Amino acid sequence: MTRVGVLGGGQLGRMLGLAGIPLGLEFRFYDPGAATPVAGIGRHERAAWTDDEALDDFAESVDVLTWEFENIPVATAERLARAVPTFPPPVALSVAQDRLGEKTRFGSLGIPTNAHADVQSAADLKAGIAAIGLPAVLKTRRMGYDGKGQQVLREAADGKALDAQAIFSDMGEVPCLLEAFVPFDREVSLVGVRTALGETRFYPLVENVHVRGILHTTTAPAPAVSTDVQSEAERHLSALMTDLNYVGVMAIEFFVKDGGLIANEVAPRVHNSGHWTQDGAVTSQFENHLRAGLGLPLGSTAARGTTVMLNLIGDVPEIGDVFADQGARLHLYDKEPRPGRKLGHVNVNGSDPAQVRSVIARIEAMMPEGAGPV
Amino acid sequence: MTRVGVLGGGQLGRMLGLAGIPLGLEFRFYDPGAATPVAGIGRHERAAWTDDEALDDFAESVDVLTWEFENIPVATAERLARAVPTFPPPVALSVAQDRLGEKTRFGSLGIPTNAHADVQSAADLKAGIAAIGLPAVLKTRRMGYDGKGQQVLREAADGKALDAQAIFSDMGEVPCLLEAFVPFDREVSLVGVRTALGETRFYPLVENVHVRGILHTTTAPAPAVSTDVQSEAERHLSALMTDLNYVGVMAIEFFVKDGGLIANEVAPRVHNSGHWTQDGAVTSQFENHLRAGLGLPLGSTAARGTTVMLNLIGDVPEIGDVFADQGARLHLYDKEPRPGRKLGHVNVNGSDPAQVRSVIARIEAMMPEGAGPV
Repeated sequence: MTRVGVLGGGQLGRMLGLAGIPLGLEFRFYDPGAATPVAGIGRHERAAWTDDEALDDFAESVDVLTWEFENIPVATAERLARAVPTFPPPVALSVAQDRLGEKTRFGSLGIPTNAHADVQSAADLKAGIAAIGLPAVLKTRRMGYDGKGQQVLREAADGKALDAQAIFSDMGEVPCLLEAFVPFDREVSLVGVRTALGETRFYPLVENVHVRGILHTTTAPAPAVSTDVQSEAERHLSALMTDLNYVGVMAIEFFVKDGGLIANEVAPRVHNSGHWTQDGAVTSQFENHLRAGLGLPLGSTAARGTTVMLNLIGDVPEIGDVFADQGARLHLYDKEPRPGRKLGHVNVNGSDPAQVRSVIARIEAMMPEGAGPV
Repeated sequence: MTRVGVLGGGQLGRMLGLAGIPLGLEFRFYDPGAATPVAGIGRHERAAWTDDEALDDFAESVDVLTWEFENIPVATAERLARAVPTFPPPVALSVAQDRLGEKTRFGSLGIPTNAHADVQSAADLKAGIAAIGLPAVLKTRRMGYDGKGQQVLREAADGKALDAQAIFSDMGEVPCLLEAFVPFDREVSLVGVRTALGETRFYPLVENVHVRGILHTTTAPAPAVSTDVQSEAERHLSALMTDLNYVGVMAIEFFVKDGGLIANEVAPRVHNSGHWTQDGAVTSQFENHLRAGLGLPLGSTAARGTTVMLNLIGDVPEIGDVFADQGARLHLYDKEPRPGRKLGHVNVNGSDPAQVRSVIARIEAMMPEGAGPV
């Protein structure tokens, strides 16, 4: 039985496991935290990302390795990759972990992205604002996640210049990236998968709605996307995956502005905007990630009808109420409720998009007050 | 977190677990054997069906109880049901475990079944043959499973009377049931689910092909079934479930002869002929069984397109070969290969039945020689 090691023990690990167990795979998770979502899915090795002995033991205990969390130290992934076949390649982590490196990579591959400036000091910030204009978004270069570590900079009401030093101090004086604020029409993302032989497949573009920086809903396929835009998105992600010799699932988020795509960021892993595939596509992103890494043929990425995914954030409605709606599919993560925390999601699939949206709206209305993103 | 106890640790327990974990359930299995299929799914208590202390401990360790195996001693289920809410009701086991009781129950509920005779002795067998005629099928009343414990009796080539004593000895002189052999046109089955409040739902009738007594393929929905026949089947299963105060999934197998239904047998549990629901229905039989037992609203039993389920018996083809066919869904059970053993199944779903059948035929052709039913 092939033993799959997974770095990280969150909900993405849980769902990788649930997708892989029917394929006869066994899962082992490495996570410094409590990793409650994978408690029932496979053995959990609880140790630090920098514990070389634990890492080496873990590498020995598995046949193949992947991750479900992208803020793992690159050195950790590289050490493991020397000991056991690892997918995606660790270089993909380093690209995703540095917003500047990500933008630079977009640029070198001809993937359109927004204007941006490297900010290492208050002076850089001042120069960046002068070059890019306001509004703009200042983000830490590393470890940003779900809207954390970023702020929107706007013109002061009195027209005075912003206090670059105060803002940079507020960000902790860590390396930052200043990006032009894109007044986008909508946000879409593309989930693709690539094998070691270079075969690629792409799910349809989906439309995402974020609330306070956290993904709220995904509609799949995204309404009103031309085949040209789908092809363009695939071309961009394909270029990036080829450049990285990527294996597995990768997601890329775009802003849509006047019909054009502006790349925002990538995730070198299965992605929240691909959760709809569990109930709305022939093969889920989780299964295809595993298939790619195990050298198996990829499964069809075709969508069935329309699916809307709703994240359950901060709290979970009564299960009986969720199920009162025919066809709602529930995926819980076994995590302690906490404001702003993703605790599960609901997928609703159907042939009539309006009907699907109305079911989602009813479930959305069940979410307890104040449990939403903070 | 609700802890679900499951009696039996085979593939049905595995798939109940995989369906229930996303609903936030935790699973514990009780099985006297190795129970490899549930090794990754939940804690396994290995003890005898008659070990009262272990049973009582198990009952204390769970919030609700069900089974995935129908040859559990009824006294065991009854003991547990006194300690913890249990579904289905244990009386359903006793009906299913005794072929005579099952036929009698069919008769009392007006469910058509084939002519049959109770055989407690060679003399009974002789009388039964005289009454029913040949060919006929002699089955042990208890513990028959997948074609074991039964033989077909035919007219001797020389026209001589059969040696009833020799035949009865061959069956081990245990109580048997003699049934008229039904030269059926095809076999179909119905999977239904009922809640404690009496709400019922039914999947569409499916067509089953058995090879040497073991289910080989299921086609869902069964081709060319009129709404009248579907309604008739639902009426029969509904009558039986109501009579038993049944909660959970129940399956009933019918022979179809000249367009009419003849009930063959029931299974008071999730059933192999319902495995297609994992990939071909809105809600799987496994999830609906759990929903019924937990007092949750039932999920839609509607089919999506056509699905064919192929059992992988005795051996498993190369996974890469199975996946070379787009859209094939694989479900392995983590069981040691052995001739005649169910090791997994493949579901193929699509909108074009001919295309689905041709994919199944290609996968069928991959099965190693001699690995089939023995």
